[in-house]
Amino acid sequence: MVTNTLHFKTVEPDLINAYVSRLHAEVNGGKVGYYHLPKEGGQIVQKAAAFGRMHPHFKDIVVIGIGGSSLGPKAVASLLFAHKKAGTPTLHFIENIDPWSVEATLKRLTLEKTYFLIVSKSGTTIETISLAKVVMAQMGCLPGSFHFADHFGVITDENSPLDAFAKEYGLSAFHIPQNVGGRFSVLSAVGLVPLTLCGYDSKALLEGADACKETYVEQGDEAIMQKAYRYAIHKQASINVLFSYADAFREFNAWYTQLWAESLGKKHGYARMGLTPVGLIGSVDQHSFLQLIMEGPKDKTVTFIKIKNFNKPNPIPSIKLPFLDKADYTAGLSMGSLLNAQCAATMQSIVQEGITTDLIEIDTLDAWHAGYLMYYYELLTSTCGLMLGIDTYDQPGVEVGKRILKNVLGARG
Amino acid sequence: MVTNTLHFKTVEPDLINAYVSRLHAEVNGGKVGYYHLPKEGGQIVQKAAAFGRMHPHFKDIVVIGIGGSSLGPKAVASLLFAHKKAGTPTLHFIENIDPWSVEATLKRLTLEKTYFLIVSKSGTTIETISLAKVVMAQMGCLPGSFHFADHFGVITDENSPLDAFAKEYGLSAFHIPQNVGGRFSVLSAVGLVPLTLCGYDSKALLEGADACKETYVEQGDEAIMQKAYRYAIHKQASINVLFSYADAFREFNAWYTQLWAESLGKKHGYARMGLTPVGLIGSVDQHSFLQLIMEGPKDKTVTFIKIKNFNKPNPIPSIKLPFLDKADYTAGLSMGSLLNAQCAATMQSIVQEGITTDLIEIDTLDAWHAGYLMYYYELLTSTCGLMLGIDTYDQPGVEVGKRILKNVLGARG
Repeated sequence: MVTNTLHFKTVEPDLINAYVSRLHAEVNGGKVGYYHLPKEGGQIVQKAAAFGRMHPHFKDIVVIGIGGSSLGPKAVASLLFAHKKAGTPTLHFIENIDPWSVEATLKRLTLEKTYFLIVSKSGTTIETISLAKVVMAQMGCLPGSFHFADHFGVITDENSPLDAFAKEYGLSAFHIPQNVGGRFSVLSAVGLVPLTLCGYDSKALLEGADACKETYVEQGDEAIMQKAYRYAIHKQASINVLFSYADAFREFNAWYTQLWAESLGKKHGYARMGLTPVGLIGSVDQHSFLQLIMEGPKDKTVTFIKIKNFNKPNPIPSIKLPFLDKADYTAGLSMGSLLNAQCAATMQSIVQEGITTDLIEIDTLDAWHAGYLMYYYELLTSTCGLMLGIDTYDQPGVEVGKRILKNVLGARG
Repeated sequence: MVTNTLHFKTVEPDLINAYVSRLHAEVNGGKVGYYHLPKEGGQIVQKAAAFGRMHPHFKDIVVIGIGGSSLGPKAVASLLFAHKKAGTPTLHFIENIDPWSVEATLKRLTLEKTYFLIVSKSGTTIETISLAKVVMAQMGCLPGSFHFADHFGVITDENSPLDAFAKEYGLSAFHIPQNVGGRFSVLSAVGLVPLTLCGYDSKALLEGADACKETYVEQGDEAIMQKAYRYAIHKQASINVLFSYADAFREFNAWYTQLWAESLGKKHGYARMGLTPVGLIGSVDQHSFLQLIMEGPKDKTVTFIKIKNFNKPNPIPSIKLPFLDKADYTAGLSMGSLLNAQCAATMQSIVQEGITTDLIEIDTLDAWHAGYLMYYYELLTSTCGLMLGIDTYDQPGVEVGKRILKNVLGARG
């Protein structure tokens, strides 16, 4: 169960009805494919699970990918870190062209027990292809060598250059639907294959996402519409803070940051539009960013995420520490309850300042709720994009840097 | 060596001279203590090193602390992760009242080999004292038990409640100077003790910080003044992005976020002032937040940090992959050079958009440069505070939530 409570003045339905129709048109139009992944993903899960059963000797699954190719599966694995089943493979990420972190990751792996997934929607991402070469060379497993296809697979668009490469060497290939963008691809093969191979419950992930679609698209719960409308018209509050109460949300926040920033920061004719994401972790960031929200300019909205039940009832012990008795009022509470009380207190103090606030409460943090939350944020992003009148699904601004890089380095040789 | 290149129009010295005098007055005034830590820290390093030599059996050092008590040492340890000396103790952090992450950390520890440092400037931080009780109970090491003082120590203000508690049980206590605020305390015992115990070169850290002070305070290099002036007058660009090119900067970015947000978000009479920090990692976040910088509203400034030499010359191999030859232009480059070329290309594309940009280049990433960078950001924060006319060193906005928490939970019993 998920509830979303809005602590701001909502508007009359007739102000948002036009957008409801436009969202339905987009959902059913076929141009934007991610909407249908919750129903379509089952087949990929089956294929990945079968692959896993045929290769029970893999202890480490490594995603070589960046941006949309890594942030989604990383977010899910991080959300579910406390529920990892013993004996299932460990999931690693080689994302950045950083010699130190690449070395640190490769040092922990042995080729025999490792399967590498090269993940790139376009099949040409420069970091990913370069990193794949580094990995092949350092692990001593080059294309053409006897075991190459046993240790490398790809996730990419059908008929991309990477897909053609995979065919050439007989590598397993999992495809991303053409109409699913990289940052909306967590419920496609991009997320489902590595997560399934590592024993996460991908089926529940899809079911949670489908339940979210059911609530906000089919049944017409208007919380997402109201939030998006608020964000679109409340021009001076252009920074959207996501304040998640549990360490498990750290990578989810990073996934949200990409989804939001890359989708909603766009030139629109001569105008520059954009909503800026900020991801925080409670209660840690009460000791950091909170001061700025409370007393800084009113340029922020805040969404709290709270886990109702951590399923860890062990209480903070009633130990009396001399001179430290002012802290005794937390004795007997479970850590989860204290964390949630802090969430409630912080939220109350922010609401009192008149800042646009809402609260998402999830019953517990499992694969079902992870899928729900991710679909919720994808829907919210799409809805904001509709209301801002921009193209949510492209990213023209990052092409300039790619061209400059190529020119600078290409001129070398 | 560190160089800072400004890619925006600087102003005449007479516009900033008044602030130079005020900064000197603050440095020499005695009210703000962190300025002098680079010279004063040597003694604490000696004391911590002696403690370490007397306790060679500790394999794990655990900081129990939150906010300013954990972010600084965590940032340094993360910056230097690739240089960790073999055989030195591992540094852990128990920061958040999160039952899952606390359990995951404690599971990896055995009491015999572990030393816990309870870190709280005020000595009353509710999360920290509650977590200390959880740790004592779960590790089976309660106050009064025979080995209690062998496994717990404190870092706190002299005569704080936590200090009195330590005296009661004969725990080692390291003190934070009264006039050093939590978020400016990384070069005090807060950072120096755990880092020294774990074999990091704290002496070089202090020397790097001192070199930074020499450059910007004694010798009067005006880069920091010019940046702060720009940030203070350029009102529409109130989001300050730090784009750091290496994974090692992830926790440094979090440290910067606290320092910036908690220092520079303040009510000032009826006005709400504030600069919003955003920390990014290159090249990963070129595939995320960059689109928003390039095409979104011009409400951001960007600082790039680049490591000139990663000391890892192994090149991206010249493997020819069929169908993937478009990526061949990176062959032969070291990963560090490719990362730096990406930094240069991204910076050029942002400068072309007319966005306020500067570049900090460090020769390599070692303890000396880590100390320099941290002191640089502390100085920049202080200077921005002076120019905004706010109190950089308090945090009144977070007290409301603390009161609400106490009322809500206090009403229980």
